[in-house]
Amino acid sequence: MAGMDVVGGKAVYHGVMTIAFLGLGNMGEPIARNLLRAGHTLRVFNRTASKGAALGQAGATPASSPAEAARGADVVMTMLANDDAVREVAFGDRGLLDALGKGAIHISVSTISVALSKELARAHSERGQAFVAAPVLGRPDAAAEKRLWIIAGGAAEAVERCRPVFDAIGRGVTVVGAEPWQANVTKIAANFMIASMLESMGEAMALVRKSAIDPHTFVEVLNGIFDSPVYATYGRLIADRAFEPAGFRLTLGLKDVGLALAAGQDAHVPLPIASVLRDQFLTAMAAGLQNADWAAVSEVAARNAGLEPK
Amino acid sequence: MAGMDVVGGKAVYHGVMTIAFLGLGNMGEPIARNLLRAGHTLRVFNRTASKGAALGQAGATPASSPAEAARGADVVMTMLANDDAVREVAFGDRGLLDALGKGAIHISVSTISVALSKELARAHSERGQAFVAAPVLGRPDAAAEKRLWIIAGGAAEAVERCRPVFDAIGRGVTVVGAEPWQANVTKIAANFMIASMLESMGEAMALVRKSAIDPHTFVEVLNGIFDSPVYATYGRLIADRAFEPAGFRLTLGLKDVGLALAAGQDAHVPLPIASVLRDQFLTAMAAGLQNADWAAVSEVAARNAGLEPK
Amino acid sequence: MAGMDVVGGKAVYHGVMTIAFLGLGNMGEPIARNLLRAGHTLRVFNRTASKGAALGQAGATPASSPAEAARGADVVMTMLANDDAVREVAFGDRGLLDALGKGAIHISVSTISVALSKELARAHSERGQAFVAAPVLGRPDAAAEKRLWIIAGGAAEAVERCRPVFDAIGRGVTVVGAEPWQANVTKIAANFMIASMLESMGEAMALVRKSAIDPHTFVEVLNGIFDSPVYATYGRLIADRAFEPAGFRLTLGLKDVGLALAAGQDAHVPLPIASVLRDQFLTAMAAGLQNADWAAVSEVAARNAGLEPK
Amino acid sequence: MAGMDVVGGKAVYHGVMTIAFLGLGNMGEPIARNLLRAGHTLRVFNRTASKGAALGQAGATPASSPAEAARGADVVMTMLANDDAVREVAFGDRGLLDALGKGAIHISVSTISVALSKELARAHSERGQAFVAAPVLGRPDAAAEKRLWIIAGGAAEAVERCRPVFDAIGRGVTVVGAEPWQANVTKIAANFMIASMLESMGEAMALVRKSAIDPHTFVEVLNGIFDSPVYATYGRLIADRAFEPAGFRLTLGLKDVGLALAAGQDAHVPLPIASVLRDQFLTAMAAGLQNADWAAVSEVAARNAGLEPK
Repeated sequence: MAGMDVVGGKAVYHGVMTIAFLGLGNMGEPIARNLLRAGHTLRVFNRTASKGAALGQAGATPASSPAEAARGADVVMTMLANDDAVREVAFGDRGLLDALGKGAIHISVSTISVALSKELARAHSERGQAFVAAPVLGRPDAAAEKRLWIIAGGAAEAVERCRPVFDAIGRGVTVVGAEPWQANVTKIAANFMIASMLESMGEAMALVRKSAIDPHTFVEVLNGIFDSPVYATYGRLIADRAFEPAGFRLTLGLKDVGLALAAGQDAHVPLPIASVLRDQFLTAMAAGLQNADWAAVSEVAARNAGLEPK
Repeated sequence: MAGMDVVGGKAVYHGVMTIAFLGLGNMGEPIARNLLRAGHTLRVFNRTASKGAALGQAGATPASSPAEAARGADVVMTMLANDDAVREVAFGDRGLLDALGKGAIHISVSTISVALSKELARAHSERGQAFVAAPVLGRPDAAAEKRLWIIAGGAAEAVERCRPVFDAIGRGVTVVGAEPWQANVTKIAANFMIASMLESMGEAMALVRKSAIDPHTFVEVLNGIFDSPVYATYGRLIADRAFEPAGFRLTLGLKDVGLALAAGQDAHVPLPIASVLRDQFLTAMAAGLQNADWAAVSEVAARNAGLEPK
Repeated sequence: MAGMDVVGGKAVYHGVMTIAFLGLGNMGEPIARNLLRAGHTLRVFNRTASKGAALGQAGATPASSPAEAARGADVVMTMLANDDAVREVAFGDRGLLDALGKGAIHISVSTISVALSKELARAHSERGQAFVAAPVLGRPDAAAEKRLWIIAGGAAEAVERCRPVFDAIGRGVTVVGAEPWQANVTKIAANFMIASMLESMGEAMALVRKSAIDPHTFVEVLNGIFDSPVYATYGRLIADRAFEPAGFRLTLGLKDVGLALAAGQDAHVPLPIASVLRDQFLTAMAAGLQNADWAAVSEVAARNAGLEPK
Repeated sequence: MAGMDVVGGKAVYHGVMTIAFLGLGNMGEPIARNLLRAGHTLRVFNRTASKGAALGQAGATPASSPAEAARGADVVMTMLANDDAVREVAFGDRGLLDALGKGAIHISVSTISVALSKELARAHSERGQAFVAAPVLGRPDAAAEKRLWIIAGGAAEAVERCRPVFDAIGRGVTVVGAEPWQANVTKIAANFMIASMLESMGEAMALVRKSAIDPHTFVEVLNGIFDSPVYATYGRLIADRAFEPAGFRLTLGLKDVGLALAAGQDAHVPLPIASVLRDQFLTAMAAGLQNADWAAVSEVAARNAGLEPK
């Protein structure tokens, strides 16, 4: 059970928590394993039950519904593909909302919309529960290696109570504000910046290629300027036009650009680059690239410049 | 005097060159000083003669025209603000072209258009002279500290002869191709990527600000993701909305975006992000920001989102 | 009661129908009056009951809920501001869906999303009811004068049964396909083209103004080229910068652009001009123009060009 | 010889003028014939001499150079494909500028840049000559039938002296200002609006096609709304995807969009729709459509939506 000490006038949370973990995909599965390793009691639920069984062998208790997992837990964590999936496990039949106890916390780890984040905050608050949005930065390998960076939003006291969880799954936390949705906006804005880089790199690379310059030479130049692992990694992918298997699928990229545009619309913030991204991602979808890595958005610039598909 | 040895069947250039250096602005002046320090004989020309006089005290010989500087030189280097200025010192009255001797090299260090680069290559070739485009990456402080990175394009033999010059002014060279204009395209494409980053950061920051999140917190998150000095530097400027004094003026940014669009048009490469950049830079010009740092393009996103000018 | 004759082997519908009319706004009210004038029996429902009372004096029967209006009617017509309002009267508590009889028809006259149109078609079909989408072209004055043009989509037999209704409210019908949502896409695409014209006119007019040319002279030139009442009307508004009172509010324009983008996303059709429109409408919203006529989107181009707000 | 009467205190120009006409392409040739028909003395020059010979048979005097045509003429008219061609006949070897007499007028009928228009105005003024920009609206068939509409800019007195010429070639004139370049801006802005319509129609049509709606039905709807011959004509072309033979070639369309962007840049007017147009025209060029009608820009939207080339 989770406990709290007061050390020097400050609350320090520790100890073993009972955590309901919903969503065992590429990201969720390694996160869940790290929670087990840290000694927490884990109940897991996944739409495809076999994934829960695998974690069961590692010490977790598979549950047959979000409600069953959430009942009596200190914390419920959701790591699901999109708003619809989160909505289903929260508000749906045998959902977590009505099963979770008073005072318990829902930590939403996946990238969801600002609108849904606000809706969840309201629903939990009405039930005397806490809601913390804590989207993570990092790919599955980073999740496995406990190297995720967490962007957290929520009431200070609730965020503080999440520390043992954050410690178990990542290397650090940036707290952005007292409203959970502020963490979602931050994550969405950050993802938008990566997507922008992919598109501008795609355009630049199309120009470079049509100028008969080796694209890898261009990547070298970019590394000289930006000195960033993100530019290095995606530069290589785009120079090689190697988009399979996908690290992060293009359809998910389009979803994230859509979240940025929706957040912008809510706040009356025009985002002209995001608008270009949306059109380029849609063009990529129409060209059949939906399951390629989202770096394949660069193919649109290449093909519109008259370069043949690889 | 510059010399050449053949070591192991390969030409090795060395020794003291006579260099005509045209253009002693923020970038040109520190580069010229490094050439002096490396022991080269320097003749300098600047439209504003006082700058030449200052370098004269450091050992350079001021010249009264590009032609006078270029006559008998091994190398002439141009570091000027835009195409018109380069065109003037090359093709104009008492320009360098007709004064430079056979076999001498013109190294164009500033960011010029692909079209002008091709025109210069042709003009020099007709006169038995060599032309190397060698635009540099880095700000004035990097120039002073010999930390420039050089992107070189031109005939292999000519580029090789430039090595002592490159060694004197920078920390490394990427050779992109045998055509000088390929170096110009590469530089233009790289600058376009920095400009893209500024605009997408401006948009993201407008969204973050209207969500009542501290923009410096957002910069922290970006640093966590991109781990790039370029993001760190510009992130801070944009978070502070501190655009004076300009490191690189917004009008020059618009010029560079225009070079990217022109290069794209020549090669039939649509660049939708560059198109957005052009519109945003123009909006910034119409708002009176032409002398601010080019990071002030982010103000357009801020103001269009309804945020008051600082 | 509505009847059908077979004349020359073809079904001809005639006679008095019992029509439930939901939504008595600027457009709904004059349409409803024309239905009364044509002799149909009318039950009306409006969220604000006073509007129903006014029509009651003209011979309609006010109903206290969509369900009450729809029960036993031949036809139910909806003319509401947006998807949410239609969703509420259809699926909501005391909504029309469960009250409408088998074989009756729901004619959706307002501009709704493709997604909602598909959803309604499914829901009505499951209940043995018919669904026809029949969005109309024309402003309130055209509605009053029976000059609306109707874009209809739905099963041929159902559309045929709507003829007496269409005859009573408009001057003609274009049937676009057997799927109701095809009529919605067509309307959305047509509205998008008007919005595009507003924005390009705004940009052209900003250029003309900054060139010290009388904008009315430019409108004359446009009239000479396009010879279109739409260009003449909006040209005058934009030349005068006269956007109050609104004929069609800017927020509704943004809604319609959003419908176009959503339809494009569903069908994998990038719409770069619609993306620009969205950004410009949002900028107008952030500038406080939401209640101005949608032609005020032209103010964004004017202000971004440095022209002072009028 | 041209004369002037004062009728009711107003100057009325009449009589036979000696006109040098330079440029006998699709547009120039029918215009020149109308000048002959109106009784004017015509000297013609064309780079391809055979065209001059054909007009010689109709009564014109072929000249061997712009200078020969212009010497002693009352008026010189230029109708050439682009800025370079106008620059050549004006400033080039044996160009018109130094041959034209004091007090004579240069009427520039083709679509040229604002920058060149200003340059010509200056050059003529220095020589005591007048310069009137009078770009025309209308296709070759309209030129043949004297149905062109003329947009004129220049000093009032000079424009007045052009009336007999305008009467001979068109159906009306709109005078936009005392600066010749104002007529060029107006023409450029009007062409930009036609190009905008092509692109938005292309996008709308892609959406309609992917929704399995007959594109001709959509054109019917547009005709119902816009009631414009321009929409009707281009609607049919785009619905049929019939872009050969070109009425106005796509490369010329790209040139005109470039003129709009350049005029906007000079005046600090961002034109986001023009930016989209430029990218789409470039994509069309890269796809090999440069010699198709400019309505073929709609193919970009179609293909990016995944519709196969016809």
